[in-house]
Amino acid sequence: MRIVALAGGIGGARFLRGVQHAYPDAELTVVVNTGDDTTLYGLRICPDLDTVMYTLGNGIDEERGWGRQDESWRAKEELALYGSPTAWFGLGDRDLATHLRRTQLMLGGQSLTEVTATLCARWQPGATLLPMTDSQAETHVTVVEDGQRKAIHFQEWWIKHHAALPAEAITLVHHGDLLPAPGVLEAVEAADFVLLPPSNPVVSIGTVLQVKGIREALVDKRVVGVSPIIGGAPVRGMADACLAAIGVETSAEAVGRHYGSDILDGWLVDTADVGVTVPGVEVRAVPLLMTDLETTAAMARAAVDLA
Amino acid sequence: MRIVALAGGIGGARFLRGVQHAYPDAELTVVVNTGDDTTLYGLRICPDLDTVMYTLGNGIDEERGWGRQDESWRAKEELALYGSPTAWFGLGDRDLATHLRRTQLMLGGQSLTEVTATLCARWQPGATLLPMTDSQAETHVTVVEDGQRKAIHFQEWWIKHHAALPAEAITLVHHGDLLPAPGVLEAVEAADFVLLPPSNPVVSIGTVLQVKGIREALVDKRVVGVSPIIGGAPVRGMADACLAAIGVETSAEAVGRHYGSDILDGWLVDTADVGVTVPGVEVRAVPLLMTDLETTAAMARAAVDLA
Repeated sequence: MRIVALAGGIGGARFLRGVQHAYPDAELTVVVNTGDDTTLYGLRICPDLDTVMYTLGNGIDEERGWGRQDESWRAKEELALYGSPTAWFGLGDRDLATHLRRTQLMLGGQSLTEVTATLCARWQPGATLLPMTDSQAETHVTVVEDGQRKAIHFQEWWIKHHAALPAEAITLVHHGDLLPAPGVLEAVEAADFVLLPPSNPVVSIGTVLQVKGIREALVDKRVVGVSPIIGGAPVRGMADACLAAIGVETSAEAVGRHYGSDILDGWLVDTADVGVTVPGVEVRAVPLLMTDLETTAAMARAAVDLA
Repeated sequence: MRIVALAGGIGGARFLRGVQHAYPDAELTVVVNTGDDTTLYGLRICPDLDTVMYTLGNGIDEERGWGRQDESWRAKEELALYGSPTAWFGLGDRDLATHLRRTQLMLGGQSLTEVTATLCARWQPGATLLPMTDSQAETHVTVVEDGQRKAIHFQEWWIKHHAALPAEAITLVHHGDLLPAPGVLEAVEAADFVLLPPSNPVVSIGTVLQVKGIREALVDKRVVGVSPIIGGAPVRGMADACLAAIGVETSAEAVGRHYGSDILDGWLVDTADVGVTVPGVEVRAVPLLMTDLETTAAMARAAVDLA
């Protein structure tokens, strides 16, 4: 069984662990959002790629959901003592090595796709991780701060401001056509079906769908999405703030309709959302809590059954 | 009293702490070697500037002589697990923040001189630290490895190979005239005298002396040097390997004569080296062991007396 999943960070990564647990023999390719990526201190940082890699490679901090387990924060503390304006970014000491090595490899001329494969050679995530693109594309958020309208990097909005500044717009900034990374369209083409995990529908899945050709490739595929919204609230994260920015209600129904039957064939919602309808899409309700690996695997089975 | 000192890393920094202890009211400017500087993982790393800054700012690891006290090495351990070819470099977790912040400031357009002042605002070293130059200039060492003659970066020779590969040449690689950083020549001009601490005479002091105008500026000044060689051996470090590369014997007399009366007015040697003569230079013998702050301050007093 060949599965392709689009994914953002924590929610997507946890769901994919369930997929692997339920279907250990499946050939899984994950197309990961890189719109959250940023360059800090000259280091190329790819939060979603790292979260998926650490989660599937058993290096993740389970409690936090991102970054390395058994982490320390000494460099970060020192950066604050130096008065760095970006000391708010969660730069763990062990995690730092990933950014250092990635930057070293990229300065050596490797593409992000190649670097990701090299880093995964250590982590053995049991899946092929592909960045959505090898080009630079960064999600910027338009906010009003101190009476000034301005665009800030998604990370600054998300981490420094905890998404508390209302987003007037969320824009994926890139130059020219945003091309998919090598292998992305081929993987979708070869897949038996495509899963949209309960990742952020705007800044994770929504960003991946902006890459040229990906949305079009999904139209011809069996695609099943898993709602990141349960009973009108995001399971975790601040997806509501992102949905507000694009004028979509924070509900399983609204998100399902936002993806639409263009893309979706099936939409999995929580039992709290029984009765949700999305025209042209088969909707099923099952418990969507990823409290442990077994419940997550059950969710994955429900999604695959629907596909 | 206005003092200028040229300096490399550990030996120079310790000596300067003695100078500050003996003369707390002196106005001290330190012109620091930057030939050891390197770019790793995209980060600009300035080992000698950091050693002087940490030592005079009470952040140094006393035992090791370089890097931060209470250091941890988690990022470095992870880099080795990623198979980074530069994981031999001593990158401490706390120390990393200095490189990150420096790189951030330099990417923001600041010169190394400006960045150094910004970093020192935190450390308060009680002296003005100036890089010898704001231009890029790196010490490369020509070695023969596996039958191949090649130039490698000084850090690779010094740290990875422990200076055990014989150096056929030591070259400061730069483009065009290597200009002094702003304030360097002015500081020398304004100084009552100049001290050459017991730093490496080839890759530390010798490198600073290659900056355009510095050697010439010293000719007109009272200059007193402190021998880094005692009884035919370097007090610490591997200066002998560097001296061999330039055909200078590892002795207090040979190093004094290498600097020469052109530059030197006084040459301070250890009591083990009584009898050393350097034509045209006043030589004095005093105990040169920097075992504690008091003995180091006594050394500094002897140097200042000679000046």
